[in-house]
Amino acid sequence: MKFVCDGLSLSEAVTKTSKACAVRTTAPIMECVKLTAKSDEVVLLATDGELSIRKTVKAEVFEEGEVCVTGKLLSDFLTKLSEEEITIRTGDRGMEIGYRDASSFLQTLPAEEFPAISFDVGENYFVMKQGALKKVIGETVFCCAQDDSRPILKGCLFEFKERLEVTALDGYRLALSSAELLSHNAEKSIICPARTLVEISRMLGDDEKEITVYTQGGNLLVNAEGTTIVSRLYQGEFIRKENVIPPSFLTEVTLPRLELISSVERAAILIRGDKNNLVTLEAGADDVKIRSNSDVGNVFESVPAHVNGKDLIISMNAKYLLDGLRALSEEECVLSFNSAISPFILQNKDNKESLYLILPVRNAQ
Amino acid sequence: MKFVCDGLSLSEAVTKTSKACAVRTTAPIMECVKLTAKSDEVVLLATDGELSIRKTVKAEVFEEGEVCVTGKLLSDFLTKLSEEEITIRTGDRGMEIGYRDASSFLQTLPAEEFPAISFDVGENYFVMKQGALKKVIGETVFCCAQDDSRPILKGCLFEFKERLEVTALDGYRLALSSAELLSHNAEKSIICPARTLVEISRMLGDDEKEITVYTQGGNLLVNAEGTTIVSRLYQGEFIRKENVIPPSFLTEVTLPRLELISSVERAAILIRGDKNNLVTLEAGADDVKIRSNSDVGNVFESVPAHVNGKDLIISMNAKYLLDGLRALSEEECVLSFNSAISPFILQNKDNKESLYLILPVRNAQ
Repeated sequence: MKFVCDGLSLSEAVTKTSKACAVRTTAPIMECVKLTAKSDEVVLLATDGELSIRKTVKAEVFEEGEVCVTGKLLSDFLTKLSEEEITIRTGDRGMEIGYRDASSFLQTLPAEEFPAISFDVGENYFVMKQGALKKVIGETVFCCAQDDSRPILKGCLFEFKERLEVTALDGYRLALSSAELLSHNAEKSIICPARTLVEISRMLGDDEKEITVYTQGGNLLVNAEGTTIVSRLYQGEFIRKENVIPPSFLTEVTLPRLELISSVERAAILIRGDKNNLVTLEAGADDVKIRSNSDVGNVFESVPAHVNGKDLIISMNAKYLLDGLRALSEEECVLSFNSAISPFILQNKDNKESLYLILPVRNAQ
Repeated sequence: MKFVCDGLSLSEAVTKTSKACAVRTTAPIMECVKLTAKSDEVVLLATDGELSIRKTVKAEVFEEGEVCVTGKLLSDFLTKLSEEEITIRTGDRGMEIGYRDASSFLQTLPAEEFPAISFDVGENYFVMKQGALKKVIGETVFCCAQDDSRPILKGCLFEFKERLEVTALDGYRLALSSAELLSHNAEKSIICPARTLVEISRMLGDDEKEITVYTQGGNLLVNAEGTTIVSRLYQGEFIRKENVIPPSFLTEVTLPRLELISSVERAAILIRGDKNNLVTLEAGADDVKIRSNSDVGNVFESVPAHVNGKDLIISMNAKYLLDGLRALSEEECVLSFNSAISPFILQNKDNKESLYLILPVRNAQ
């Protein structure tokens, strides 16, 4: 294999592709990017077995061929090399990177060891604005489970109805967001890994452009801005949000979102060493009181609010409350409760496209 | 104690003062800031037993008094509070922070437990430009030892001769810098803790303003921009730089500094997993070759150079070489060697006020 290409383009492409490389694995080939030089381009491909990213770079190819090299190493090396023109060639000593009159060698692995990834486009697809896809990902993905106790919760549920409805939950809280579908011929629903969604979101560019996402046979494929992402989808039963979100509420509180955030942030400072990280809200006649209490001190504040329904005292993990409040966007937000031990929800006052549900914690104080 | 003051001023002052608080200690009082309200100001004081920082904030004092509260907690809390006017009052429940119609309480410790710090100004002093003091600190302090095996090496040696000469070394490398003294009545030399120097450097403002540093009885005191720093000095014998820096060299290499840095950075990427982090320089007729070699690959580059003296191959820790090269400032730098096993030095080509010495490593390759 031998090709000459622009160093900066190659560097950027390797850095983006290698996001799919496995880390801390016992199979070194999974930490590699595969380079394939053919006709007038070089195709870069990385996969961790679940997520795969492919990018193409223009090149003058003198000898076709393919080779694998550790993604992180190649990416870091090329980042430090701001040459306009570099020559890549394979030989006995590995992959030679030539620049000016210097040349360096990186250890390679044979391309045959690299897993085969299918880039076939299935029959099922959905089409939406790039900005809308970015929005539903951003509004939900942070609520996905982090640990492996229930692997399916490490993904977001995409339901194709009149609109796209996206749900994420981790057993303590739930996020729901929706957006317009321009057209679709999709399965009823898919469950997409959070990590894939984060990479798709990074790949998206112009908010107004359309994007088509293909799904079939437990796989997803999406192609934008010169990058192709292929990912396994999760199979199994996702918790039905209809069983979790209460249909009605006894207390509805409307209040200024940023004031509530900064008040809860102060309350959270005093309890950051505590295991439960508990903050207490008290909905009264015309305000919400925010309290936290620990060995190091206590916070007692109030934020003016429009309270509709019966009074209530409820405690929750301050982090979950802050995450949800920060993901909303309007000046005013609405908190809806039933009782101190029932799940409650946060929403924007006007635009109800997104919703956060949090399980409260019984407070012994 | 009760006072009213500007929230932002207090927040900034507490954040700066609490830099001197001890961390991870078994004596909670050492993690505290002491607040003393008297006449029309509040004095903030923190110390870890070695370094002490004092700042003063204007306040309307209704009741004089003093109290101690954890520095990090107070600093974080006040940072989240952007109120113009806050009221601080001590009572049964600790320190009450009042803002708008809310109030929060922080646990306090009695001021009597706080160690006494002397702010007496001694007879000895030196005067220099703030910019010059900042320069000599920045050019040396990063070479101080990090571990406790020889505690004295965790400080910089200040020698008062015609100019101020500052030395730092950690057993593998040495940094030397000098600057003009405007006047002085100082001891022959002092050894100042690196941490104190970093805080002094942060405190300095206008480069052209003069600053007076007082030293006496093993202590240092400096006062600028409304902040007073007091620090213990280290006592003992510092290694004499005259015994370490070779008086003459057999090979002198002049070459472009930034080109050498980026070449060594690339070489360093391939060896970052290795224990010795070895990069090899080879001074030839009209260039310096840069090599590194590891399991994952090898780098072989050359940088054009003016070589004066005999050829030489020498290996060293890439981090030490990069630290030294980055601390120099001119386009061209000079590397001076005697042999592959003798210490070598780095300097700017023209301004020789600073110097870095590095011990080479025998390379078995």
